[in-house]
Amino acid sequence: MSGYDPRIDEMYFLLSEVLHGPSELARLKPFAELDADLILQILEEAGKFVRGVIAPLSQTGDAVGARWHDGDVTMPPGFKEAYQAFWTAGWPALATQVEDGGQGLPSVLEALLYEMLSAANHGWTMAPGLLHGAYECIKHHASDQLKSEYLEKLATGQWLATMCLTEPQAGSDLGLCSTRANPTADGRYTLTGTKIFISGGEHDLTDNIVHLVLARLPDSPPGPKGLSLFLVPKFYPDGSRSAVQCERIEEKMGLHGSPTCVLRFEEAASWLVGEPGRGLNAMFVMMNAARLHVALQGIGLLDAAWQIADAYARERHQMRAPGKRTPSKNADPIAEHPAIGRILNTQRAWIDAGRTLAYKTAIELDRIRYGTPAAREFAQNWCALVTPVMKSAFTQQAFHGGSECLQVLGGHGYIREWGIEQIIRDARVTMIYEGTNEIQAIDLLVRKVLADDGKGLEGVLDFLAADRPAELPGRARAAQRIDAMRDITRQIIHLAPANAELPYQIADDYLRAFALILLEWSWIRIGATVNADPARDLPRWREPATAFEQWVMPEFQMRLSIIEHQFGLVTT
Amino acid sequence: MSGYDPRIDEMYFLLSEVLHGPSELARLKPFAELDADLILQILEEAGKFVRGVIAPLSQTGDAVGARWHDGDVTMPPGFKEAYQAFWTAGWPALATQVEDGGQGLPSVLEALLYEMLSAANHGWTMAPGLLHGAYECIKHHASDQLKSEYLEKLATGQWLATMCLTEPQAGSDLGLCSTRANPTADGRYTLTGTKIFISGGEHDLTDNIVHLVLARLPDSPPGPKGLSLFLVPKFYPDGSRSAVQCERIEEKMGLHGSPTCVLRFEEAASWLVGEPGRGLNAMFVMMNAARLHVALQGIGLLDAAWQIADAYARERHQMRAPGKRTPSKNADPIAEHPAIGRILNTQRAWIDAGRTLAYKTAIELDRIRYGTPAAREFAQNWCALVTPVMKSAFTQQAFHGGSECLQVLGGHGYIREWGIEQIIRDARVTMIYEGTNEIQAIDLLVRKVLADDGKGLEGVLDFLAADRPAELPGRARAAQRIDAMRDITRQIIHLAPANAELPYQIADDYLRAFALILLEWSWIRIGATVNADPARDLPRWREPATAFEQWVMPEFQMRLSIIEHQFGLVTT
Repeated sequence: MSGYDPRIDEMYFLLSEVLHGPSELARLKPFAELDADLILQILEEAGKFVRGVIAPLSQTGDAVGARWHDGDVTMPPGFKEAYQAFWTAGWPALATQVEDGGQGLPSVLEALLYEMLSAANHGWTMAPGLLHGAYECIKHHASDQLKSEYLEKLATGQWLATMCLTEPQAGSDLGLCSTRANPTADGRYTLTGTKIFISGGEHDLTDNIVHLVLARLPDSPPGPKGLSLFLVPKFYPDGSRSAVQCERIEEKMGLHGSPTCVLRFEEAASWLVGEPGRGLNAMFVMMNAARLHVALQGIGLLDAAWQIADAYARERHQMRAPGKRTPSKNADPIAEHPAIGRILNTQRAWIDAGRTLAYKTAIELDRIRYGTPAAREFAQNWCALVTPVMKSAFTQQAFHGGSECLQVLGGHGYIREWGIEQIIRDARVTMIYEGTNEIQAIDLLVRKVLADDGKGLEGVLDFLAADRPAELPGRARAAQRIDAMRDITRQIIHLAPANAELPYQIADDYLRAFALILLEWSWIRIGATVNADPARDLPRWREPATAFEQWVMPEFQMRLSIIEHQFGLVTT
Repeated sequence: MSGYDPRIDEMYFLLSEVLHGPSELARLKPFAELDADLILQILEEAGKFVRGVIAPLSQTGDAVGARWHDGDVTMPPGFKEAYQAFWTAGWPALATQVEDGGQGLPSVLEALLYEMLSAANHGWTMAPGLLHGAYECIKHHASDQLKSEYLEKLATGQWLATMCLTEPQAGSDLGLCSTRANPTADGRYTLTGTKIFISGGEHDLTDNIVHLVLARLPDSPPGPKGLSLFLVPKFYPDGSRSAVQCERIEEKMGLHGSPTCVLRFEEAASWLVGEPGRGLNAMFVMMNAARLHVALQGIGLLDAAWQIADAYARERHQMRAPGKRTPSKNADPIAEHPAIGRILNTQRAWIDAGRTLAYKTAIELDRIRYGTPAAREFAQNWCALVTPVMKSAFTQQAFHGGSECLQVLGGHGYIREWGIEQIIRDARVTMIYEGTNEIQAIDLLVRKVLADDGKGLEGVLDFLAADRPAELPGRARAAQRIDAMRDITRQIIHLAPANAELPYQIADDYLRAFALILLEWSWIRIGATVNADPARDLPRWREPATAFEQWVMPEFQMRLSIIEHQFGLVTT
């Protein structure tokens, strides 16, 4: 069944008409020549590749899975050929630098590409998904020697890469990592230790795999400041194999197309990347981009689930829908039943608003790189605050909203045939990796909002308040909610210094409230665009807009109530 | 890992001290001799059996699954032996009638038994779980001839049974069933058609399987009123095999230990059960009990997930918890981190309140059978209104709250080893079967509350309001919420006649609001009991009580807002 079909027209409408993406990008120097037609053409080609090559491998990838044998990993049928087609067509190189062999196109196009890839086949997409962080990390921190050996291979995707962070005793708390790095006489280091949960730690997609590994130098202090970053490839430039062993791959709830490896490093010769003790900084250089991509996985997976549910609800006839009493039929399409219509429109509301925010954030990532100083400052702040929100909100929505879509199919959703239960199983991990959603909430409130006394947050809220078209009916209500967000933030800032636990107790609610404020901005922006164009298909956009206001936005007041209740406990 | 361990002490505390179950049951004539010690002893024996025999088979049951070959189904390793031990020990006969070979004990004990069984091994428990409805159906509707042949075998669990309702085109709308029943000269009927999603339709647990099948007699009217009920066994009393073929079993998200069968009936000789055209009525005689058991599956599965998360959170050390700055350690147990504590206490709040409500409802099922006329009337009304709420709320909570528990384990929750991801996969189907949760909401609001202009609901709310101990601090707030529930119900009753769609649009929110009112009653009742006994472990009960008020109950106001917003759309 399945067969995710990216709706390029809808994605492009949000990017181009709602966000004015092409003209915004054209203001950035490297993209001055990039016109809207070319952007659309690239997206359409990407859609064709995803639909024709990647989507058809998803269900087999789940059913067969990656297989471990004696240290080697065989990927599911067709995965290798698809990857070879992918990199030789230049897709991994879309947004890497021209000087490294890339195409130098905007990050936002890469973002849309990965949304589609994840929607079509999350398991397959894990392998190239990790490439971009490794590329940036090496580009910004590695020695010229390492760059000359590895950068082009990674920029083009000819080789793939891993990020080796987690250890059995060190997950959210990487400061507990104990993998050791000992210097050797030749200026290299031997790595010894075990890393777990390494996506793509071993596979047969590419000739080589480049591992970036967090480890501890001798006499380094305990905790995160004692960690340095090292590079060790599967095969060294001389063709010899490194002492990195894939001990096993995990049996998981889903994502069977992506091998989750236990890697054992046995005095593996490696090189330092960046400065000693600055390993986490080097690795987190691309954290916003990586977390945004996880949010886009969530959006893509939810869209894939929605497509299946929508198609099913139009075909499946059960009972008369209330208010439809024409005697000619004995059942209506379930899409016409209010409970089902609500699910479909509500999840559509999340997807459309999420795309708008994610694409906007990806454009801001391009601005961080190429914008004017003022634009760069705004963009840095936007990405710092919005990224953890997107990561948390849309990975949660992929699982919970995807489960709602499964519910549309009833028992048929629970069986494998329709492909929707796989989406839910695959999606579940996105709430965990790249920083659990609880970590995202703490990142937002403690490390971002409280760290600068709410100034950055005020900047984002000022933008949202100013950007709203005055004529829309929801404007006044939205402005009140923004003010409520400001108020509650000020109260938290006021109470936090005397209550160490308070921010941690309300971080989740705070993130959810802010997410809703951001999503409301998306819907106001979409609404204004749709209203301005009489040729638009109004019900397509108005039904999710209404669903958003009726069934999504009421959570905002609930979150504020929960936070305020917590204030009461603190102050009494 | 896994190894669900039923906490009989906590279950018995709720049944005995919070609900006064033993003394309430002793007022019913058949249970006059049943004392509290015997009840506790039975529960402890049940716990021992579940822990020792059933729980250890759960992970193998998932990994190996039921296997189909050429029409036969082989159950996972150990399942058959466990079932033989189960029925020969008399567990399926716990609450069936003494005259049929049962033990005649209260339904509420059966309810607790099945909560434990489902928590320990949902897949295995599906097989005996379907037995009790079939037994009641045959007892109340079948001919004496059929009873003499089948009743004792089902009352003791020597044979198992199925309910054959769903067809490819008929799921929530059973009126679309097209399986035909043609009368034959010997007073029997031949069944022809295909039934899908038949749990336990074929297996090797017992010597025989009794199928109850909805089918359509010649010249019967279209829709649900044209359906009659038929009995066809796998083997007839003369030892010959019936023309019922298991065509295949479904590949599912979870519940691999339970074969979900496609059954083809090829002129299978069968007998009518009950009157022609009254098939649905005969089958739904036990609907409240069946739905309550599904709610208990949800409670049990959530408790199983909670146990894993709780154990993990005490052992796993990551980072310092906020406010804990003693320099002696570099990490605290994650249970001490607020985000994790919130998850554990919130899910505990759902489990404890859910058990209280489910056990109370099971006692009401016993009162329906043996109570005074007044008690019977109250009990009928209680079960009619509370059962769909419990089914929906606790199957949803098993999946969503279970997923929260998985989150406590981070990446370790996503891999198979810990057994928690299986619980989430297994639990998902409970939101679908025995009437989808959307159907439960419509059942509550349209078929129950609106059908008698809210009189039944007022009866339940009167009980909840009157039952609250006055001295508890939450009492006034709870009373206000009960009044709000009355108000919103009156408004719906007022607006519904002119707005056919309205009740369907708000049914889900209405069910959730009512669920929260009921759960709040549980917590007030638990709180009063705990406060009255100075020897109780206060934090054990107070922490979830606080979590309930802080993080669960705020949804009540949100649901009312959503409903009221919908009123606005209707009246403008």
